[in-house]
Amino acid sequence: MKIALDAMGGDFAPEETVKGAILAAKEKNIEVLLVGDKGILTDMLKQYGGNDLPIRVIHAAQQIEMGEHPVKAVRTKKDSSLVVGANLVKQKEAAALVSAGSTGAAMAASLFNIGRIKGIERPAIGTMIPTLKGPLLLLDAGANTDCRPKHLKQFAVMGSIYSQEMFGLSNPRVGLLNIGEEETKGNELTIEAYKILSETPVNFVGNIEARDILKGDVDVLVCDGFIGNVVLKYTEGLASALFAMIKEEITSTFVSKIAAGILKPRFKALKNRLDYSEYGGAPLLGIDGVTIISHGSSDAKAIKNALAVAFDIAEKEIPEKIKKQLNIEDGGE
Amino acid sequence: MKIALDAMGGDFAPEETVKGAILAAKEKNIEVLLVGDKGILTDMLKQYGGNDLPIRVIHAAQQIEMGEHPVKAVRTKKDSSLVVGANLVKQKEAAALVSAGSTGAAMAASLFNIGRIKGIERPAIGTMIPTLKGPLLLLDAGANTDCRPKHLKQFAVMGSIYSQEMFGLSNPRVGLLNIGEEETKGNELTIEAYKILSETPVNFVGNIEARDILKGDVDVLVCDGFIGNVVLKYTEGLASALFAMIKEEITSTFVSKIAAGILKPRFKALKNRLDYSEYGGAPLLGIDGVTIISHGSSDAKAIKNALAVAFDIAEKEIPEKIKKQLNIEDGGE
Repeated sequence: MKIALDAMGGDFAPEETVKGAILAAKEKNIEVLLVGDKGILTDMLKQYGGNDLPIRVIHAAQQIEMGEHPVKAVRTKKDSSLVVGANLVKQKEAAALVSAGSTGAAMAASLFNIGRIKGIERPAIGTMIPTLKGPLLLLDAGANTDCRPKHLKQFAVMGSIYSQEMFGLSNPRVGLLNIGEEETKGNELTIEAYKILSETPVNFVGNIEARDILKGDVDVLVCDGFIGNVVLKYTEGLASALFAMIKEEITSTFVSKIAAGILKPRFKALKNRLDYSEYGGAPLLGIDGVTIISHGSSDAKAIKNALAVAFDIAEKEIPEKIKKQLNIEDGGE
Repeated sequence: MKIALDAMGGDFAPEETVKGAILAAKEKNIEVLLVGDKGILTDMLKQYGGNDLPIRVIHAAQQIEMGEHPVKAVRTKKDSSLVVGANLVKQKEAAALVSAGSTGAAMAASLFNIGRIKGIERPAIGTMIPTLKGPLLLLDAGANTDCRPKHLKQFAVMGSIYSQEMFGLSNPRVGLLNIGEEETKGNELTIEAYKILSETPVNFVGNIEARDILKGDVDVLVCDGFIGNVVLKYTEGLASALFAMIKEEITSTFVSKIAAGILKPRFKALKNRLDYSEYGGAPLLGIDGVTIISHGSSDAKAIKNALAVAFDIAEKEIPEKIKKQLNIEDGGE
């Protein structure tokens, strides 16, 4: 089973993507198709000692830049590393695609070149958020800025299957991100979604208020992609702002500076706990294949983790399981 | 100038509301109309030494509970402390109303009994969020779960006036909470709101992504009330989860426990910095009077601060200034 890696996508590509591929091949025994400029990638593979590993370079002459219009770029740059990578998945030459390039472009290439699962109207980005009791899966984290209630239902079904398969949860708890606990609370979308989710064959436990997200009382949290993206980015921003404030406070006196020095490794441990590059990128659930969208600033370790997650999803045949579930539901209706 | 206080509203009412009124009268020389059960309040005032202060008890036989339907409760409980308080503002016997009871009921009483400013379609809750560079005003923090672009425009105008008057900012920077920096990014609401805000006579500086909220690069941040409420509550939840994680990490070894002990006062300083009871409650902007909605868990200090903020808003005639600005805009159209 081979995983295609958009080697030219990401803030630190191709150095970190190549190094990440090497780590994945060495440590996880994953076969990687490194897609991008053949000359550059071949040299770099050699330079970083990746020659005798199960990594093959697939040439793609173009690359999609961060500022480009996603749909336009994917439609016109047929020979870009991203589009070539997506086509490898379409043609079953690769079991999955990983990209740390433009999120919009990765979504567009996945939709156009790999395609949606029949019956899924809106594929969603699933992101792991660290909580006090381990990570939860938040979806949609940004693929769909305006959603209808039935989309949230599909997110719940896909998220449940993902959590079952990837984390071995037998009956994942699904929550709806909302602004009150009662079922009558919320906006037009969430009030209607509550009703639909109550009748969906998932373990729906009700509304989750934002102040309770990090308590970790649900395994899957569904919301529209606008709010999901705000939550995801605010988690990032709030954590880093708090660390900045902590630093300011604890280095304000001589004695506290010494104490802070002693605690440094503990703060580092905490930062790692909050570091979502550990989770290796976000799956795009609902496409008829596997795409992992990694953070633009991914380093080699994050790329390695993304390749490992992609491998896992493909091996566990999660898209097939989503299809099967949709068929069961259709049959039951 | 007298301020009406819903003495029966809040998790710790009437003890903390009475004590808060006493603090406000003593420290800030504010005249308080303490609305609620005359017997209870009179006894309590005496008990806490508030007899010789400019505090007058106004009897109200009923009170609105947290679980009640806001609109129904306000319409049927005409003799509740909240409704009687709102009527004091309507009748110009009080310059402002403060309540730590049900947010929904306080909004309903303000809308029905005090009324909207002509031209304002949707009054909004403004909340102070602490940032790395001082607090910013977020609105709407939860009054309107579904908004149209023109509502966000009015939030921007009201927020600008509030920041000018309350914090002496000459040209407050207004941002739109969105999921990308470019003006083409966002959902249907924010893409349209961006255009309208660009033509509004405020200092609109563009989109603010959630990861940048706490950098403090804007003074006023507008968004719909659903997302604003999520941001507000997530700030609360994330900060407390991070403190819990920090505690877990820094007390994991003997030496780090000692270091943590030394840093305790510093962490406390940080917690105070993040504590929004310091800001004394949230104004409901857009009503034809002054209402301050305080956190349900308000203690005496929070109530005192809320009374002080209410006094300030009334003294600075912010509702009148909002009216004036709307007239100018109408004239210019």
